[in-house]
Amino acid sequence: MAAPSSFNDYVQNHTDAFIDRLRTAVAYKSVSGDSTMRQNLIDTGIWLKGELENLGVTVKLHDLGMQDDLQLPYLVLGSIGTDASKKTVLVYGHYDVMPVTMQANDWPDGSDAFILDVKDDKMYGRGSTDDKGPVMGWLNVLEAHQRLQLPLPVNIRFLFEGMEEVGSPGLDEFIVNEVNNGDFFKEVDCVCITDNYWLTTRRPVLTYGVRGIAYFTMDITGAKDDMHSGLYGRMIHEPMTDMVKLLSKLVETTGVITVPDIENQVPPPSDDERESYRLMDYQLSDLWKDTGGRKVELSEDTAELLMGRMRYPSLSIHGIRGTFDTNDGLKTIIPANISARFSLRLVEPLTPDYVIPRVTAFLKAEFAKLNSKNEIEVKYEGGGLPWVGERNHWNYQAADAATQAVWGSSLYPNYVREGGSIPVTLTFSEKLGKNVLLLPMGQSDDGAHSSLEKLDVSNYINGTRVFGEYLYQVANAQT
Amino acid sequence: MAAPSSFNDYVQNHTDAFIDRLRTAVAYKSVSGDSTMRQNLIDTGIWLKGELENLGVTVKLHDLGMQDDLQLPYLVLGSIGTDASKKTVLVYGHYDVMPVTMQANDWPDGSDAFILDVKDDKMYGRGSTDDKGPVMGWLNVLEAHQRLQLPLPVNIRFLFEGMEEVGSPGLDEFIVNEVNNGDFFKEVDCVCITDNYWLTTRRPVLTYGVRGIAYFTMDITGAKDDMHSGLYGRMIHEPMTDMVKLLSKLVETTGVITVPDIENQVPPPSDDERESYRLMDYQLSDLWKDTGGRKVELSEDTAELLMGRMRYPSLSIHGIRGTFDTNDGLKTIIPANISARFSLRLVEPLTPDYVIPRVTAFLKAEFAKLNSKNEIEVKYEGGGLPWVGERNHWNYQAADAATQAVWGSSLYPNYVREGGSIPVTLTFSEKLGKNVLLLPMGQSDDGAHSSLEKLDVSNYINGTRVFGEYLYQVANAQT
Repeated sequence: MAAPSSFNDYVQNHTDAFIDRLRTAVAYKSVSGDSTMRQNLIDTGIWLKGELENLGVTVKLHDLGMQDDLQLPYLVLGSIGTDASKKTVLVYGHYDVMPVTMQANDWPDGSDAFILDVKDDKMYGRGSTDDKGPVMGWLNVLEAHQRLQLPLPVNIRFLFEGMEEVGSPGLDEFIVNEVNNGDFFKEVDCVCITDNYWLTTRRPVLTYGVRGIAYFTMDITGAKDDMHSGLYGRMIHEPMTDMVKLLSKLVETTGVITVPDIENQVPPPSDDERESYRLMDYQLSDLWKDTGGRKVELSEDTAELLMGRMRYPSLSIHGIRGTFDTNDGLKTIIPANISARFSLRLVEPLTPDYVIPRVTAFLKAEFAKLNSKNEIEVKYEGGGLPWVGERNHWNYQAADAATQAVWGSSLYPNYVREGGSIPVTLTFSEKLGKNVLLLPMGQSDDGAHSSLEKLDVSNYINGTRVFGEYLYQVANAQT
Repeated sequence: MAAPSSFNDYVQNHTDAFIDRLRTAVAYKSVSGDSTMRQNLIDTGIWLKGELENLGVTVKLHDLGMQDDLQLPYLVLGSIGTDASKKTVLVYGHYDVMPVTMQANDWPDGSDAFILDVKDDKMYGRGSTDDKGPVMGWLNVLEAHQRLQLPLPVNIRFLFEGMEEVGSPGLDEFIVNEVNNGDFFKEVDCVCITDNYWLTTRRPVLTYGVRGIAYFTMDITGAKDDMHSGLYGRMIHEPMTDMVKLLSKLVETTGVITVPDIENQVPPPSDDERESYRLMDYQLSDLWKDTGGRKVELSEDTAELLMGRMRYPSLSIHGIRGTFDTNDGLKTIIPANISARFSLRLVEPLTPDYVIPRVTAFLKAEFAKLNSKNEIEVKYEGGGLPWVGERNHWNYQAADAATQAVWGSSLYPNYVREGGSIPVTLTFSEKLGKNVLLLPMGQSDDGAHSSLEKLDVSNYINGTRVFGEYLYQVANAQT
């Protein structure tokens, strides 16, 4: 049983209304990384509850309590359907967004990031693709079924959170506690996370893995205060000198991690595996689109590039601080306290527990070789485990069939692993013991975090159709 | 002929009035690095002119014109005495000060940096030691002679500028032009610069050399915008990876510069020269005072330390920008545009012209070895030549005798070279063809630029006496 044609027609014919729904969602300035906007975030959760209830969902706002002096935004927990003869799908998304750093007049309509602007089939606005578009997509599916008086083919549980962009405080604890003591997850048969993107701008993907992460800060401290480089240059040990020497030992320009016993833990790809990456629909020009035309690829072999993203570990140095401010001009200081931040993206079998002592010991040993009288501290800031799901599960087969039904069989989805880290994926997988699928709506160039965020209207509308079709395919699946 | 005892008595007996003079000077918020304070700076020059005129000096305010949209502060050019039978001393100082970054309540009296606070024989306030204290010292000398109706033993020309802390725009051009076409410098026999500090907190010094400087910016550029380290880590060349590898090649943790053909240009010290540094009154504990107690010295041999400061080149990395802001938390970006700043302090025979092509070529060659597809730019930002004066000149002998007359023969001055760079020193030396002396008033711990700036009352009063006595000793000198 596929989705009835009336569903597809309804979605197609209500494009404008669905865009208005997203416009309303985007107008909520639900920036989780800005404590001054916390009330907006709480209001957004309350609004979302009302919208879901209008569409027949039973909603509970779960209070996560306080974080420091601020109330955490609610977990919006929705339930629709209790038919024991149907499967139950857990849908995850989030209603918070990243901060806005762009000026209003950088956006196409000259207004601000919270006013959705539709231009050339693209909807610009903060949260359009990450993650309000996908969340509204689910509401669109519900609306179509309600108005058409179609029964949903499955029961659905919705978990929409408001702190995803700042590490989901309290979410893991809620899940563990609810699994042990509650019943929200009790009937769940499979999980569908709609919070990532295609690998390119043209072909849908299903995502069956994410890399883990281990994030470090390294501090090197010398004199008590910044010193004048004229007076003290070549009298004292300079923390910056030590710092660049240590950082230079972490990773090659080829991307190979040079902290011992990291790279050698990851099995090399088999010929078959390498071939599977080579067969993915990915061109160098796809990467260049993302880099703004700069040809800075590590390899011209797309299989190597994709394995670099998906199945090898990586190490990036994010920055150094404690030096001078932007406005300090040609300052001639010996900075006294330098702090560098770097992180490793992890693939199995690498875990934070495995890499933390090795990274720390290596840096301390290299520092000892420098014979510096400065002081070093290496601190693990946090991280998450890598995850690889079961891509041959009926959950994936349902998503695959749904994707092909909407986008056409020539755009059959590539199965990919995500280079980024989505810790809740692993939590769902481990604590619920159910198959987890990542089913993205947006494209690779949506600019989710750092630039002009957008979602293509076609991805929004077809994505809504994929979500609906997926529910029917899940209902059909032989378990 | 020494200074008459009436002069010394007058200075000693007018300590409070002289402190009030400095208090008035400090109250002028003459911050040259802050364009919003430019009018204060202009007012300070006009006030200084009036003060000098009241003390019998003929003053001209030289208009340096505009810099961008802002009027440059005046050069205050003072002349007193035209007696052809007397020598003529050119005195240099500046009336601008560094910006204030400390909060008002970090200063001892809880008021702001522009209210002089006298506590435990120390005068705290911005500009107290750099350089309003020395400039007021000269006014004190004039006042004593005027009130006591003593003739000055020499003619004096004063050059007080208002942009020293921001590179003295227009000053060199003024000096060159005045030497060629004017008569302000015509009678000058020797130059006395009062704008630096003792090496320690206990012994006066005479300064006969400064290091030069060559300041560089190195930019490495990758993708057009910052990229997500999860999605693109190990897909693209990371500018930070390249940057730390290049910076790690510049200098050893020992302070030895590893850019080729720099260190080997500087002749090693002779045994005699090394011994002269060993005999200087300098202890490891002096350095520890400056480093806030942190024992980060490059050597425990004070001769090596002092040579590191005075007669070897040095290289300091001042900072890296283009990474993340202080408030960005655990950001996981691959920064796209990295800019590093570093400078070399130069001693003879090293010059900016010599080091610029070598530093640039070395970095580009090392970058080529990295096989990175990022782009590099190495830019010379500016600098100055090193200078070593003739320390056996009668100008130094006069200052030496004056110092011992005031501080006592057991505190005979050490002859030192300054690790910092004071480009006007070389300009005076070369363009006027006269001996240049640096005669400091303040101590090593005065915190001229970066911390709680102060000048000891005893240094201010004895310094005033040294300035006066120096004029008599110059008058006596056999030329």
